[in-house]
Amino acid sequence: MKVLVINAGSSSLKYQLYDMRDESVLASGRVERIGMDSSIVTHEPADKPEVRDVSEILDHVTAVKRVIDMLTHPDHGALESMKEIDAVGHRIVHGGEVFKGSVLVTQEVKNEIRRLFDLAPLHNPAHMMGITAVEANMPGVPQVVVFDTAFHQTMPKTSYLYPIPKVLYRRHKIRRYGFHGTSHAYVSDMAAKVLGKPLDTLKMVTCHIGNGASCAAIQDGKTLDTSMGMTPLEGLMMGTRSGDIDPAIVPFVMNKEELSLNEVNSMLNKHSGMLAISGISSDMREVTEAMNDGDENAKLAFDMYTYRLKKYIGAYAAAMNGIDVLIFTAGVGENSVALRETVCQGITFLGIELDLELNAQRSKEARVISTPSSRVKVMVVPTNEELLIARDTYSIVKEAQ
Amino acid sequence: MKVLVINAGSSSLKYQLYDMRDESVLASGRVERIGMDSSIVTHEPADKPEVRDVSEILDHVTAVKRVIDMLTHPDHGALESMKEIDAVGHRIVHGGEVFKGSVLVTQEVKNEIRRLFDLAPLHNPAHMMGITAVEANMPGVPQVVVFDTAFHQTMPKTSYLYPIPKVLYRRHKIRRYGFHGTSHAYVSDMAAKVLGKPLDTLKMVTCHIGNGASCAAIQDGKTLDTSMGMTPLEGLMMGTRSGDIDPAIVPFVMNKEELSLNEVNSMLNKHSGMLAISGISSDMREVTEAMNDGDENAKLAFDMYTYRLKKYIGAYAAAMNGIDVLIFTAGVGENSVALRETVCQGITFLGIELDLELNAQRSKEARVISTPSSRVKVMVVPTNEELLIARDTYSIVKEAQ
Repeated sequence: MKVLVINAGSSSLKYQLYDMRDESVLASGRVERIGMDSSIVTHEPADKPEVRDVSEILDHVTAVKRVIDMLTHPDHGALESMKEIDAVGHRIVHGGEVFKGSVLVTQEVKNEIRRLFDLAPLHNPAHMMGITAVEANMPGVPQVVVFDTAFHQTMPKTSYLYPIPKVLYRRHKIRRYGFHGTSHAYVSDMAAKVLGKPLDTLKMVTCHIGNGASCAAIQDGKTLDTSMGMTPLEGLMMGTRSGDIDPAIVPFVMNKEELSLNEVNSMLNKHSGMLAISGISSDMREVTEAMNDGDENAKLAFDMYTYRLKKYIGAYAAAMNGIDVLIFTAGVGENSVALRETVCQGITFLGIELDLELNAQRSKEARVISTPSSRVKVMVVPTNEELLIARDTYSIVKEAQ
Repeated sequence: MKVLVINAGSSSLKYQLYDMRDESVLASGRVERIGMDSSIVTHEPADKPEVRDVSEILDHVTAVKRVIDMLTHPDHGALESMKEIDAVGHRIVHGGEVFKGSVLVTQEVKNEIRRLFDLAPLHNPAHMMGITAVEANMPGVPQVVVFDTAFHQTMPKTSYLYPIPKVLYRRHKIRRYGFHGTSHAYVSDMAAKVLGKPLDTLKMVTCHIGNGASCAAIQDGKTLDTSMGMTPLEGLMMGTRSGDIDPAIVPFVMNKEELSLNEVNSMLNKHSGMLAISGISSDMREVTEAMNDGDENAKLAFDMYTYRLKKYIGAYAAAMNGIDVLIFTAGVGENSVALRETVCQGITFLGIELDLELNAQRSKEARVISTPSSRVKVMVVPTNEELLIARDTYSIVKEAQ
């Protein structure tokens, strides 16, 4: 079975084509600037050079058509015909309380995703455009939706309710949902396999640290708590997001700076975090480099970022009364030797003993980077959200056949 | 020396008269409903019955006059004459970045406190009315201001800066200040004395849990971090305050419920926390009672409250790489056996072994409630913010003489 994985944003669309026999990627790519006059398609076939194409792509239907053109192109394609695509899997940011796992797309599922537009106004409408665009281009091909929130639906009320008037939960479903669920699920499962221990005997903290970043407390293989909340703004300091702040700052700033609701949201989501403190970049690589060159603001950004991460690991250790495994994943988590070292050296009281050499080694494999005597196993587990979407899509479509 | 301690709110004024020779309280009391038509003065002399008086008190000047009348009353007074009051100490909620300790009131100090009205619009103007009212009634008597924020001014940038655009700090001084500083200072110092160890060798988490609640990480006798932020809203779940929530909830709720800035502030400060979740009370005693009677919402409120407290203790343990002492203080912290037990039994991984019998004993003394073998010493230290204000006032006035 060949599965096409799609992550549709409002003006972009990323894709990967998987051959599920060996889970290999046949091709991947992205369409950018959808709806603008010079849209760009970047297509990367598995064993051929990258292709770039600039043209006008006014909507998602055309974007999916261009992706299919690329995938079936005689020179740089990966398929003879579109008919070889057996299923399409979509990443959906918000599944609300309705979706506790991945499902086949039906009319009812589409209606539910539409009902969730309010909770994820920037993401879910774009995902829906992706689904509709696939329907228009590939009628009859089964589609599966995989939700960023679904894995965290096991959280108890003590974790997911906010201490605010209950009417807000009843009326607007304001609660903690958490995101990056696919990744937290994947890396916790993978870590247990590498350690050769049953997942449900381990207390884990998974740190998905990319441009967006979240931690989760995983007990018995299920999310007990996670740092992102109703939206992906809460929790850790991120590339451009503030994470936790005094909630009273929001009305205070709106008043002082005469900001609208949209403006304050934009400030906290796009102009805060590491970017705001370093004044340099939202990218950990650039910030670390500047820090190593002696830049004080970069050092402050790095220190705040790692300090806040340490506090979350400690908080989740308290939530589970200790931890057995600490996992780093995603862009920064997998690649920043400095981040892992700073964090782990600061929380040795948990029973963590980092092996500095193992930590410094680069690898694409899931691996332990703590010493053999370390009571808590520290691991780097490369995440692969696209592959997990492909797997869910594959198994759900196969079962439905 | 006799010191009058005053805590002035916008419509209330609490007072204690201390004899600093033995730090005894000669009388205490409160004026309520200032500015309303039936104001109430409740006066408690040390060894005589309580007196209540209802009259019209339209402003703070009259309120202070009534307090002096009470203190010098032939029947229930504690003084022959007002002249026996050598100094007055005021509790001031917000000292901004200017005040790093208590100071004698001067014109410049008053100007600075006025400049801070923006940061504490509900508190500082009322405190200033208290200072002015004392000046009007007791000209020439030295006054000292003791700030809730001052003790926390040792925090490093990594703790006090928020990951938001830096212009907000420069322009509006938006940063973490922390509150209850007098209490955190007092109990950490007292704990070290009881343990017979130098304060600067101990890593402590102090939990001031009253109707308002905050934790602090105290290292080398100084605040490394604390849970309240720019305002007392951030941090722990409290009686009526939410504490930490996804900051994106603020604009979301404002939009959905068409709330003004004041209304959303009021919702999060006065109608959230334990009150909102239990639906019963903001008072831990009533919530615990209802929980013991089987009320599910009360149980949920208690569970969320203790869960969030545990997470903060864990976070601060991570901030300091472990802790030596865990201290409970203030109304709930000193009196809720259930809270201390639930919290401590959930975080034994830190090296905490609670002595259940010691925990259940009632006492007004600072004491250890962990077992002799517990690596972390758990303590109950009754706080006394008024006494600390009196002490600061005494020593500053004495030095100035």
